[in-house]
Amino acid sequence: MPLSTITDPGTPLPPFAVSLGDPAGIGPEIVAKSWVMREARGLPPFFAVGDIASLRAVWLGPVEPIATPEEAAVVFDRALPCLQVADAGPVVPGTPSIDGARTAFQALEVAVGLARSGSAAGIVTAPVGKEQLYGVGFTHPGQTEFVAERCGVAPHNAVMMLAGPSLKVVPVTIHIPLGDVSSVLTVDLIRARAITTVKGLQRNFGVARPRIVVAGLNPHAGEGGALGREEIDIIAPAIESLRDEGMDIRGPLAADGLFHSRARETYDAVLCMYHDQALIPLKTLHFDEGVNITLGLPIVRTSPDHGTAFGIAGTDRANPGAMMAALKMAAEAARARLTHGN
Amino acid sequence: MPLSTITDPGTPLPPFAVSLGDPAGIGPEIVAKSWVMREARGLPPFFAVGDIASLRAVWLGPVEPIATPEEAAVVFDRALPCLQVADAGPVVPGTPSIDGARTAFQALEVAVGLARSGSAAGIVTAPVGKEQLYGVGFTHPGQTEFVAERCGVAPHNAVMMLAGPSLKVVPVTIHIPLGDVSSVLTVDLIRARAITTVKGLQRNFGVARPRIVVAGLNPHAGEGGALGREEIDIIAPAIESLRDEGMDIRGPLAADGLFHSRARETYDAVLCMYHDQALIPLKTLHFDEGVNITLGLPIVRTSPDHGTAFGIAGTDRANPGAMMAALKMAAEAARARLTHGN
Repeated sequence: MPLSTITDPGTPLPPFAVSLGDPAGIGPEIVAKSWVMREARGLPPFFAVGDIASLRAVWLGPVEPIATPEEAAVVFDRALPCLQVADAGPVVPGTPSIDGARTAFQALEVAVGLARSGSAAGIVTAPVGKEQLYGVGFTHPGQTEFVAERCGVAPHNAVMMLAGPSLKVVPVTIHIPLGDVSSVLTVDLIRARAITTVKGLQRNFGVARPRIVVAGLNPHAGEGGALGREEIDIIAPAIESLRDEGMDIRGPLAADGLFHSRARETYDAVLCMYHDQALIPLKTLHFDEGVNITLGLPIVRTSPDHGTAFGIAGTDRANPGAMMAALKMAAEAARARLTHGN
Repeated sequence: MPLSTITDPGTPLPPFAVSLGDPAGIGPEIVAKSWVMREARGLPPFFAVGDIASLRAVWLGPVEPIATPEEAAVVFDRALPCLQVADAGPVVPGTPSIDGARTAFQALEVAVGLARSGSAAGIVTAPVGKEQLYGVGFTHPGQTEFVAERCGVAPHNAVMMLAGPSLKVVPVTIHIPLGDVSSVLTVDLIRARAITTVKGLQRNFGVARPRIVVAGLNPHAGEGGALGREEIDIIAPAIESLRDEGMDIRGPLAADGLFHSRARETYDAVLCMYHDQALIPLKTLHFDEGVNITLGLPIVRTSPDHGTAFGIAGTDRANPGAMMAALKMAAEAARARLTHGN
């Protein structure tokens, strides 16, 4: 294909597969609301994967069953296309069930398969109830690890980046007690996350030479050792070795000075040492539009950065902002991969 | 005094004493710049305490020596009043010296004394170089502890609140390694900080019944114990006992969901478990206007939430935003105390 064709922003992508997540959560509602806003927000064509009944339980708009992803492109203008994966029986928004968890599991499986095969341009995953999934034989910590396995990627190489309009963060450690962070941090772990982050920014966002900033772990980034030694013993050596290899990376810097507007202009992403160090600034700035994008996968995978919100499911109060942002980011990533190569 | 007089917003306050901090830091510059903006920003009358030479080294505007705080009120309209505490010899912005540290120390001592005696409405302290201060016999960890001692308050009862236009946070632990936080947290410590915070909001901001939110320590506030037990073992019991005593306090809540705009409308202050949990959201939102206000003191004490910035001292690049915000907050606090009682 000549370069002019490859880089044409109009190159048609296949539609995106959107797994509806737990049928009793807010997934179906935010997917339907996103479809309504498809033109106003310039969303890429997509189709739902899950139980059509979960859409009809919360939405009176047009939804059409499809048999293959190809049909989605035709249907998308007039109705929300839905690839039915299971008939889970009656759906009661706000009340998760075993059948619903099975449907969520299957929807994820099907969506990943379609993306792997190229029939879908990527996947966007609505939230699942982990507790429910564990009850139906789902053995992975979360959707990310499952997707990684199906893609043949070791779970530790699938890296969560949280992204909003003005900030991208990658937590080096995630769902562990704060007191365990120090003992989990190693030079190798920080190096691995940084390398995946750089590659991820290149592939998914088309940033040729990503600028990475690394946060310190302790107050004032340890203040020369007076407030903790992890910066000196672990973080700085990791940064130094990466810089020696040519990476544009600096730190460790005091975490509290990294996220104001002027600071955010100086980098493409921040490598954070723990969950809240990454999530506090992201959600402070971009609560309703935070996207989780998995780096290190052969396919594009994004997800709105929120949970099932069973408490408000079925009340029409769910904000589709993050789902729409996840759809737009998936399209951006898929186009960047077309342009810059996978 | 009749109540109508006491609550009159026009009740004249004495001027505020502003210690210039390290003469070689940005203190003198931001104090001078604040004086220039006194009318535009509606700043209360104040006078500098320190070495007049440090002002003249960075500023060509009018500065007048005064012998007593009373003179400041007259001078303030036409010049920046300065109460000379020492002649520290030549001042070289950006190059701290032993003599300069002595001046900073004395300025702080004098300012506190004037506020204690009622000659000043309160103190606003420009940044000092701690390393330099330690070299001249200053034995306190920071200015806050020194001020507390001079006020007869035990250091652990003088509590740092960081405040910006839309957020007030109080860190329960401060300058300790992150890995030590868990072992320092106790029910009693959290209770003490919460009580001081409530009293501080009443006295300094006139909030009759402050609404306090408490952040969890671990990701997702521990997720029911799966990601750490401090919420269950320490934080929740502290909150429960305070609520039993009638305090409007809730938590522990996941820290990453507490700081977006809608969340900030639901409380008056957040009690945070560690330095960066408090400082990251505050500085993300209010980097150039963060104020440190010390709660638990018999006097009003505020301070801009930044350091000496020796690196840019003397280059006219220092932003006086936080100093001006500190002056305004000091005035607000002094007025609230007049109105609501000390």
